[in-house]
Amino acid sequence: MKMLINVAENVVADALRGFAAAHPELTVDIERRVIVRRGAPYEGKVGLVSGGGSGHEPLHGGFVGKGMLDAACPGEVFTSPVPDQMVRAAAAVDSGAGVLFIVKNYTGDVLNFQMAAELAEDEGVQVVSVLVDDDVAVTDSLYTAGRRGTGATLFVEKIAGAAAEEGAPLDRVAALARQVNSASRSFGVALSACSTPAKGGPTFDLPDGELELGVGIHGEPGRERRAMMTSGEIADVTVEAVVSDLNPDGPVLVLVNGMGATPLLELYGFNAEVQRALAERRIPVARTLVGNYVTSLDMAGASVTICQVDEELLRLWDAPVSTPGLRWGC
Amino acid sequence: MKMLINVAENVVADALRGFAAAHPELTVDIERRVIVRRGAPYEGKVGLVSGGGSGHEPLHGGFVGKGMLDAACPGEVFTSPVPDQMVRAAAAVDSGAGVLFIVKNYTGDVLNFQMAAELAEDEGVQVVSVLVDDDVAVTDSLYTAGRRGTGATLFVEKIAGAAAEEGAPLDRVAALARQVNSASRSFGVALSACSTPAKGGPTFDLPDGELELGVGIHGEPGRERRAMMTSGEIADVTVEAVVSDLNPDGPVLVLVNGMGATPLLELYGFNAEVQRALAERRIPVARTLVGNYVTSLDMAGASVTICQVDEELLRLWDAPVSTPGLRWGC
Repeated sequence: MKMLINVAENVVADALRGFAAAHPELTVDIERRVIVRRGAPYEGKVGLVSGGGSGHEPLHGGFVGKGMLDAACPGEVFTSPVPDQMVRAAAAVDSGAGVLFIVKNYTGDVLNFQMAAELAEDEGVQVVSVLVDDDVAVTDSLYTAGRRGTGATLFVEKIAGAAAEEGAPLDRVAALARQVNSASRSFGVALSACSTPAKGGPTFDLPDGELELGVGIHGEPGRERRAMMTSGEIADVTVEAVVSDLNPDGPVLVLVNGMGATPLLELYGFNAEVQRALAERRIPVARTLVGNYVTSLDMAGASVTICQVDEELLRLWDAPVSTPGLRWGC
Repeated sequence: MKMLINVAENVVADALRGFAAAHPELTVDIERRVIVRRGAPYEGKVGLVSGGGSGHEPLHGGFVGKGMLDAACPGEVFTSPVPDQMVRAAAAVDSGAGVLFIVKNYTGDVLNFQMAAELAEDEGVQVVSVLVDDDVAVTDSLYTAGRRGTGATLFVEKIAGAAAEEGAPLDRVAALARQVNSASRSFGVALSACSTPAKGGPTFDLPDGELELGVGIHGEPGRERRAMMTSGEIADVTVEAVVSDLNPDGPVLVLVNGMGATPLLELYGFNAEVQRALAERRIPVARTLVGNYVTSLDMAGASVTICQVDEELLRLWDAPVSTPGLRWGC
């Protein structure tokens, strides 16, 4: 497997150097692996910190900026960041109003963020943690106890970030983050495996002519393998999986997310089928976002995340955001 | 080759349906294949129209909006749109201030935009066309007489778009577009071939362990095949190709562009090496953009475009833009 890299050991450090060069509006501590919004901490503002293994870009570093995260901690590829990164991030963004940790539900991330929260509290930073566990495909997987955290992370970070930007207190920001997670469901499909730099090749075998339904963002196994399906058939399975689990009775946000190697042309075509499948189930769509946001290196495939929104969540979704990966209204 | 599609014949129509659903702020005529900025024509404003084969998304449809294009015409995959689309687009965006056609230098595009310009003029629309031909890899290729038009298209559309938004007249907008093209150079590398839906498989063979230097955005052959290189070595070849051709004596914009299937993690790492190679040549960098902007379906690889800018071009680059694919400052 050919990769546009130097050596596997330096992939994350190299990417951070290139990220820093492209984004002078952020403070990137390459050695300590913390990306911080310039000007943080902001007086009176709750600080939002997230992080996780690298390989899911633009998540999380690409979501640091006005109206979203205050800091992100990138780990090695598909590997949790360490507590020291999270403690530094918390210290860097705490104005005294406290810090929210947004944690995807993977065993390593959960343990490390928990340890970091304790260490940060020892240093006088008030921390509340919120778990994201939106993937309906499996419970108790290779990497997790319970459901995996995937696409809903974007919804949680955006909506909680907008509330924090408006000056909402820590308990309110945390409550909104939990509400968004509870109201969100995801389901993903892989057409090809991803290749990690360390392995230098595919992390799993996916035969020609088959796809993996319910795949995770590290290529974890899903619900089943099937013979290759059309975009419309995949949309039916995917939408049914998230809708039957959430049972929304109001409008939803829709994220049609590419896994990294699926062209935008295909993603938009898939979105047409996702919208059709939602319309057939009489689910009103408030907003749709299509693109590569919560990726899995070079995996081909897509995931769908829906989040049921009330007026307040929709207002916060529409609020201005200015980050490398998501930007509107400012 | 597995693809997230229904049938090959409907890929572009399906994508337009999905694009329309995701972007209610644009007017998408799915049947006639014209994407128009809502509210166009804008009184007194020069209309910017571009277009080309599909498969390069977000180019061009993703660049319709405030501060960039007024309309885009998507052709079939890797196939020029037809004159009828361009004539409709011109009519839809002309306020009487005239229309600029931004044309990538491929034989079919050039002929069709030329015919469209004549037809539009017959209907009373003043049209000026500007050719983009920035790719230094080859002259007179499979698809072109002269150099191919690639990454500089984004710079031309953004900077000319900003000038038009400010109310500059047609001759001034066209002069700026020509200046940007003259000041831009691109060079691309492929780590894998792209697969078109019609063919259902790779459009060319690229053996394991080799890369194609100077590849075009349709997988056209480049300058040479070589054994796989590191990110740093690729950056050296790429930067040398564009710098030795342009010989910039002032600051440049840099686009580190993914071909579609290269993860952002690798692109950012590649950017670090591009910045190093530019610094070694004492080329000051004014702004850097990293991402998948001028793609080639599912090709793995990247291209680098530089554009030498004066204060005015840099100001126009920084001006607000609000499109699906590029957005800042508004």
